[in-house]
Amino acid sequence: MKKIDVQMVEDIATGAALLGTGGGGDPYVGKLMAIQALKKNGPVNLIDIDEVPDEALIVPAAMMGAPTVLVEKIPSGKEIFKAFDSLKSYLGDEIFAVLPIEAGGVNSMIPIAVAAEKKLPLIDADGMGRAFPELQMVTFHLYGVSATPMVLADEKGNSLLLNTINNFWTENIARNATVVMGGSVMVAIYPMRGKDLKKAGIRNIVTKSAKIGQSIREARKNGNDPIETLLNTIESYVLFKGKINDVIRRTTGGFVRGEAHIEGIDQYKGETMTINFQNENLIARRNGKVVATVPDLICTVDAHTATPITTEGLRYGQRICILGIPCDKKWRSEKGIATVGPRYFGYDIDYVPVEELIKNC
Amino acid sequence: MKKIDVQMVEDIATGAALLGTGGGGDPYVGKLMAIQALKKNGPVNLIDIDEVPDEALIVPAAMMGAPTVLVEKIPSGKEIFKAFDSLKSYLGDEIFAVLPIEAGGVNSMIPIAVAAEKKLPLIDADGMGRAFPELQMVTFHLYGVSATPMVLADEKGNSLLLNTINNFWTENIARNATVVMGGSVMVAIYPMRGKDLKKAGIRNIVTKSAKIGQSIREARKNGNDPIETLLNTIESYVLFKGKINDVIRRTTGGFVRGEAHIEGIDQYKGETMTINFQNENLIARRNGKVVATVPDLICTVDAHTATPITTEGLRYGQRICILGIPCDKKWRSEKGIATVGPRYFGYDIDYVPVEELIKNC
Repeated sequence: MKKIDVQMVEDIATGAALLGTGGGGDPYVGKLMAIQALKKNGPVNLIDIDEVPDEALIVPAAMMGAPTVLVEKIPSGKEIFKAFDSLKSYLGDEIFAVLPIEAGGVNSMIPIAVAAEKKLPLIDADGMGRAFPELQMVTFHLYGVSATPMVLADEKGNSLLLNTINNFWTENIARNATVVMGGSVMVAIYPMRGKDLKKAGIRNIVTKSAKIGQSIREARKNGNDPIETLLNTIESYVLFKGKINDVIRRTTGGFVRGEAHIEGIDQYKGETMTINFQNENLIARRNGKVVATVPDLICTVDAHTATPITTEGLRYGQRICILGIPCDKKWRSEKGIATVGPRYFGYDIDYVPVEELIKNC
Repeated sequence: MKKIDVQMVEDIATGAALLGTGGGGDPYVGKLMAIQALKKNGPVNLIDIDEVPDEALIVPAAMMGAPTVLVEKIPSGKEIFKAFDSLKSYLGDEIFAVLPIEAGGVNSMIPIAVAAEKKLPLIDADGMGRAFPELQMVTFHLYGVSATPMVLADEKGNSLLLNTINNFWTENIARNATVVMGGSVMVAIYPMRGKDLKKAGIRNIVTKSAKIGQSIREARKNGNDPIETLLNTIESYVLFKGKINDVIRRTTGGFVRGEAHIEGIDQYKGETMTINFQNENLIARRNGKVVATVPDLICTVDAHTATPITTEGLRYGQRICILGIPCDKKWRSEKGIATVGPRYFGYDIDYVPVEELIKNC
């Protein structure tokens, strides 16, 4: 059994922020919450999906809302425990373990804080293998798992327990409540049994995040190129390198939406890239031609340090490298593409795997 | 102990629609729900506040949202039982009785349907003695009773259990959820103990409504003037008689807001009246001069039959009589006026009791 300590938290935060593809929250805010909980309660046990009994109840914990808001509206740290306790008391059953719902700087950390505080193990799995903006955009949904009963809690002390007829209604009602409650809330959601997670979950997100974070950290320490190291650590492709020219960003309806324009540098000089995002990066176009789309991962990192940059962290003049990473194969099913493919987000683009698109560049 | 039968339901619906001052829902839709429940389950026992033990749990049941929506989006009839059951199960205690939260064509009837279905008595009390548009606008609020835990349920099968830090947050979150859930929902709200109701409730709303409805019905049957009869039945004043010239109405943010312009007839010929409303009638001006404001009741009835007309029922050409009725004295306190006086609704008008205003006309 692995133990998650403060060093590993740092690595997970970095790696998960990369896999968060621009969303999932800022790793700095996330780390503070997790480290505080570890310092108070000691290290957290990390377990594999197969260690979860079939009938055991497990609960993902996360932040919901626009990450732009979370940067200024720091959670009290208590509301996620409240959400978790309310859901537990409603379900009237013991919770065996917690897990992340997605990768991301905050959403990889919140479940660690809950695991530490509640003395529960953390499961090395999630429902995305990356981050997505809407509640039904999880592999759990593809396998018919209900997002409700779920609990939303804000830092003021308001909370809300939701039961719906399907996950689209959950997204609809919870998203609007999130906006009213201040733009970001903490949620305990998709309670399910071990056997459901084994079918519907994506394995190894925590260890994968930790490995990515560790490789970046060690490359920097050893004077190696962290981006080179990254390319050797996980299957990934450089889509572009450039300087941010312009970022248009609006926080509306509980999301941050916008686009980033990047001017090529080095071997990309004279070229351009545009990235559209809704919390997460959705579409990357090089010289107007699509080179990667959801559900594949479009990751923005600092061109020199490989530090992941969230969509709310994108700034004029930054030199960034854009990486493409193939998504989990669960997303490449017909239902997966219908749920999180480019057309769901309103783009008239067919999904083509990034590893194929990149061959034509 | 009084029994509520179908005849009494008809009378209560009429009287409560009058006291609903334009809001509280259409009596036709409300009656259908209550009569159906009575036919299935038999008559309902009506009890006085003083028959409720101090420690007994009591729960008001109501429709929340824009009445304009309810006219086209008929409730399934099941969602209020679901809301009630969810709240009961959350509270983990027996519910002794139900009661209306306000007077109104629908909101006087829903608690009767719940009482019939759940075999519980109905308490002859409410939290307004009339109808108001927002959740915190109840005498319960003036005495510090929390609106939460409350449950909202829609006709699709979605439901939501809310816990908040104060009644304004409840209004805010629940109102937005209502809009998302289709514009009107059923709610079980303000659960409280008998001793709280005895302090904070308004007595006799059900028997008062029944008496008003009965007097109108009998006056018609006996060939008497129903408006004359009404004036002799409860303390009330004729503010105006006229023909509706124009109605401006917008359903927005979960409310119907607007104003009605009325041209005088009979002894009011050559004069005008304007009524501003937000679900309920708020301000009445005769020839530009204020003659009644919230929290006093401004009631619109058919000039010949005395049938109460809701704000969504106001139509060009209708001949109506506008009545002023003094509100319960709980509303005339400083906190009462701050909660539901003209200034709360954005009007730069001091509250003056209708019986004083009418003297200067």
